[in-house]
Amino acid sequence: MAVYTRIGAETMAAIIAEFDVGALVSAKGIAEGVSNSNWLIETEGRNGQGARFILTVYEERTDTADLPFFLGLLDHLAEHGCPVPRTIHDRANQAFRHHEGKALALIEFLPGVSVSEPTPAQAEAVGQALARVHLAAASFPGLRANGMGLGAWRQLATACSREGLDGIHPELGGLVERELALLERRWPTDLPVSVIHADLFPDNVLMRGAQVTGLIDFYFACTDIIAYDVAVTHTAWCFDATGQRFLPELSRTLLAGYQAVRPLSGAERAALPLLARGAAMRFLMTRAYDWMNTPADALVTRKDPMAFARRLEFHADPANAGIFA
Amino acid sequence: MAVYTRIGAETMAAIIAEFDVGALVSAKGIAEGVSNSNWLIETEGRNGQGARFILTVYEERTDTADLPFFLGLLDHLAEHGCPVPRTIHDRANQAFRHHEGKALALIEFLPGVSVSEPTPAQAEAVGQALARVHLAAASFPGLRANGMGLGAWRQLATACSREGLDGIHPELGGLVERELALLERRWPTDLPVSVIHADLFPDNVLMRGAQVTGLIDFYFACTDIIAYDVAVTHTAWCFDATGQRFLPELSRTLLAGYQAVRPLSGAERAALPLLARGAAMRFLMTRAYDWMNTPADALVTRKDPMAFARRLEFHADPANAGIFA
Repeated sequence: MAVYTRIGAETMAAIIAEFDVGALVSAKGIAEGVSNSNWLIETEGRNGQGARFILTVYEERTDTADLPFFLGLLDHLAEHGCPVPRTIHDRANQAFRHHEGKALALIEFLPGVSVSEPTPAQAEAVGQALARVHLAAASFPGLRANGMGLGAWRQLATACSREGLDGIHPELGGLVERELALLERRWPTDLPVSVIHADLFPDNVLMRGAQVTGLIDFYFACTDIIAYDVAVTHTAWCFDATGQRFLPELSRTLLAGYQAVRPLSGAERAALPLLARGAAMRFLMTRAYDWMNTPADALVTRKDPMAFARRLEFHADPANAGIFA
Repeated sequence: MAVYTRIGAETMAAIIAEFDVGALVSAKGIAEGVSNSNWLIETEGRNGQGARFILTVYEERTDTADLPFFLGLLDHLAEHGCPVPRTIHDRANQAFRHHEGKALALIEFLPGVSVSEPTPAQAEAVGQALARVHLAAASFPGLRANGMGLGAWRQLATACSREGLDGIHPELGGLVERELALLERRWPTDLPVSVIHADLFPDNVLMRGAQVTGLIDFYFACTDIIAYDVAVTHTAWCFDATGQRFLPELSRTLLAGYQAVRPLSGAERAALPLLARGAAMRFLMTRAYDWMNTPADALVTRKDPMAFARRLEFHADPANAGIFA
């Protein structure tokens, strides 16, 4: 949530001049993106009618070796009619450039706002958009391992330690150990795999009313179980922010929207309760790790890991297994 | 340089609906403004063709009692042809509203970028724009004391203490005491007074090429010596960032640009060397105070007070008195 790199106006104009988008008119650093610096850029456009873009400078947390995958995926999905921003290639047709040792990319600006309290109609539209991404991604040739998969959850749990987790909540260490053991034992290996978004929270969806105008921030995209992405999106949209309240109407419309475009197979549907426990574990573990490694007085807001411990407990309760039926 | 207030999309849409600017299309928190939160807002516009605005939420450092002055000044200057953003009044014709106890204002978006290395032509245009502000401000009825004037410099020096200043640089305490005593003895009381910007650094000027497209951030504007504002702008534009190098060509064109619109009187010109020492002292003291009161490892970048100590020494040197002649 910051701009880490400072770029003077003259330098910015020179960077923009490497793209065929008209001269720079305005550049505002925006408070978006957790690990990259972003500017909202306005140019004269090719025809003088003005055009807008997001300029992203990739800071240390993004491995530039992954950029051809991320940016190529955006282009592929946009070509296949998904509401994702296109990458603007430079005059040498490169998808990204370098500036002072850092990679940067110019990306199409899309209108829309990220909703805080989704309506059922909005959840339905997001389900549809996610399914369209999964269908379009089937023909994308890129491959990228999920760096935030099952193995990473165990690594994070070890790094946090049982005592550390219990320091967040007396029962958290036990919950994590019990659930991780179960996930490691039962994680499916025979479900369809494709490129997935893997982080489709409301923050990463731009909407106007109930229309999805943009799916953004594909920097966790990877090759993994398609239905797991449904579970991630479900956990991101179908609970209140504290994880205390399941929102059945959003759950119903999100799944219905998804299946109207890409019906889940019987095996996928049967796996969803377990995949949902995995999705809750994924965000529980990264939040717990960040919680323990961020000073309480740091300027970045720590996100409460318990919001996902509660989701995990919800899905572990057999009484709730029916929500995906 | 941050967004301190979080506003959900639904709340933002409701806030924007209080203005006659069309429905909200996009809202991006921008990393601008030292003490307020700002968003770049896009709406459908009155005619459906789209419109852009800056939404400012005033955080604690801005006294809302001053808002009628600041916002009224913008409207007055815009009406008189100055390149400043207009305040958008709400449907009840109020220039600002309240949201959760904080004041907020919707302000016209202006294109342009803030230059880092001004050219002589850009300095000339800024001089002209400043003079136009001074001429237009003459008919503005508002009054506001300068909270960062001579009295404040003494208060800041006392708060820093001689030892504290010497901790920044062994000779700084002596320089400040010597110069403050001189400024207190010789500060003019008979020069023309009006509303001045008082902080017209390149960051607060939007430009396209050598054209000034916007003067922004009037939150230090106050009633004070007009020629002092020329001195502030001069110190902001006519040295390199470290204060080690005076830029005579920018100085010449900035002053020529100003005088082409509003010629300085003989008394004003004669006072400029002293006013320039005051301008350097003003930023030296706020930077020294912030330097001493910001932990070295804080996320905000501390600005080197010595950049203005060097300017102060430059102007204190009789060999340089001729630059304003």
